[in-house]
Amino acid sequence: MTITAYAALGAKCPLSRHSYEPAPLGTSEVEVAISHCGICHSDLHLIDDDWHVSKYPLVPGHEIVGRVVDSGSGSSLRAGERVGIGWQRSACHDCELCRASQENLCLKQEATCVGHEGGFAERIRIDSRFAFPLPEGLDAATAAPLLCGGVTVFAPIRRWGMKAGASVGVIGIGGLGHLALKFLSAMGCATTAFTSSSDKRTEARRLGAHDVSSSTDVRELKLHRNRLDFILCTVPARLDWIAYLQALKPGGVLCLVGASPGLMQFPAAQLLTGQRTVCGSDIGSPAEIRDMLAFASAHRIGAEIEMSPMVNVNAALQRVRDNAARYRMVLTNP
Amino acid sequence: MTITAYAALGAKCPLSRHSYEPAPLGTSEVEVAISHCGICHSDLHLIDDDWHVSKYPLVPGHEIVGRVVDSGSGSSLRAGERVGIGWQRSACHDCELCRASQENLCLKQEATCVGHEGGFAERIRIDSRFAFPLPEGLDAATAAPLLCGGVTVFAPIRRWGMKAGASVGVIGIGGLGHLALKFLSAMGCATTAFTSSSDKRTEARRLGAHDVSSSTDVRELKLHRNRLDFILCTVPARLDWIAYLQALKPGGVLCLVGASPGLMQFPAAQLLTGQRTVCGSDIGSPAEIRDMLAFASAHRIGAEIEMSPMVNVNAALQRVRDNAARYRMVLTNP
Repeated sequence: MTITAYAALGAKCPLSRHSYEPAPLGTSEVEVAISHCGICHSDLHLIDDDWHVSKYPLVPGHEIVGRVVDSGSGSSLRAGERVGIGWQRSACHDCELCRASQENLCLKQEATCVGHEGGFAERIRIDSRFAFPLPEGLDAATAAPLLCGGVTVFAPIRRWGMKAGASVGVIGIGGLGHLALKFLSAMGCATTAFTSSSDKRTEARRLGAHDVSSSTDVRELKLHRNRLDFILCTVPARLDWIAYLQALKPGGVLCLVGASPGLMQFPAAQLLTGQRTVCGSDIGSPAEIRDMLAFASAHRIGAEIEMSPMVNVNAALQRVRDNAARYRMVLTNP
Repeated sequence: MTITAYAALGAKCPLSRHSYEPAPLGTSEVEVAISHCGICHSDLHLIDDDWHVSKYPLVPGHEIVGRVVDSGSGSSLRAGERVGIGWQRSACHDCELCRASQENLCLKQEATCVGHEGGFAERIRIDSRFAFPLPEGLDAATAAPLLCGGVTVFAPIRRWGMKAGASVGVIGIGGLGHLALKFLSAMGCATTAFTSSSDKRTEARRLGAHDVSSSTDVRELKLHRNRLDFILCTVPARLDWIAYLQALKPGGVLCLVGASPGLMQFPAAQLLTGQRTVCGSDIGSPAEIRDMLAFASAHRIGAEIEMSPMVNVNAALQRVRDNAARYRMVLTNP
């Protein structure tokens, strides 16, 4: 019954072994034996209490792949089934957003590892509506980062109607950005990767970018004026937002999935003239996660990962802190 | 042949009588005898050269209603037909935006009264693709302001999918805002008018608002938290953008059609958490103008206007400068 896990006992603490007694398995819940769990930057923010929502002991982890080992009578998942679990663990299923299949926007939603024990553990119990069957074609290890990082970039690309022939920019070639390049390439979009690391230029092309640009050199950014239908910003950086807005075609959309610090600033006229849009995107709904998993399976898309036994979690976390992982760390259970 | 008009001879000058020789009528052009022309704030900006695009003598006017008096062989409009003309007078009809019926975003577009003589005149010559037949049900005088002000608010309301049951906020109850309230009311939306003028509260309800709020009192704005699907900002004012973003439901959209001075500022996290959008909208396409005119005709929607003979144009302009017009000035030819 007892679940063993790795937990931070206080803000910014290294993780240590930790056991907890899970709540009784609800009728709509499943228990999943975790084989893999990706490390997302959000896990570091939670460990460090950057968002002032953390409670300790805190078990991070929300890019989970494993097999169902037990299921409540109301769950359609069966023991042995391979599933993935992402950032969200519950929603009210009753508000207008839930009824419109936008459970990721539900005001009563709960996160997998905020106020609940997450995936840096041997097992987890969760509402089966947030455990998604993994298509046969997907490899468990490289699929784990799809559950949060993958859907975070895939959902807005789909929602904003990107398709073959669209010109799309991706800012940042990291855990999220490298998956965006793979998805966009498979969709037939013409992609431009914006990066501040000159050593990632060749990498970006290997990952599917047709064109690479500096993300910070304003002269280089100006070459993209009126060029892009959509720009996905995956980095939490202060950028020259005006230059990026000007890189959009009239009617274009700048979408943030990384929260840049400080204030975004630009003249309102930059939105009005040429009818441009700035928006954020917040993970993805269960329907979008299923769509993303099916697409990834059909196009053989997985994250580029470095694997580490879960027992070495602190070293793995350090590689993420150092932005050294290429491109996602995945913890494995024996 | 000669057309008599009213022109500013220099920046910020009062208008004076002015005659010009129009270019020969092109095969796709029509000549329209103007019966009515609304006054838009943009006309003042052009007269004053606020946008540094004005050339003098400058004949303002781009909310035009009149009757076709001559047409080129390539035009489908016939003499005697009643038409409306708005902000845009041409597009390339060849770029991907034009081909997608977004001529209002064409980078080669020209405006009716920028570099061309506008509607403060007895007649005008224009590409017939930008002269729109006026449905029978519309009154010429109250329809004139629909051609710019009307479509400027109607187009984004439609484009962003507002329909019966949606909760929509309108900031500013002026030339644009009062039309937005009428359109939204006819669509069955639940509208909240945001105004800084306490004397407009009763007016806003008469125009269709279900609820009225201060546009500037932050305590009052906070009462709207997570309440609105869409907010249309029609005023060029510096507002508390964070309070308005927080007034949106998750997934909601703040759309600007009035260019506020200075910089818009807000934390990126305001867009990410709850997946919110900030956008601008730029007049409307020919298809959107036709859609708007049909809707206005079906629902008997026209602007609330004050009429003035065109000869008194300077007094009429002054009422617009003083924000005294309720809600749109319309110049009339004998």
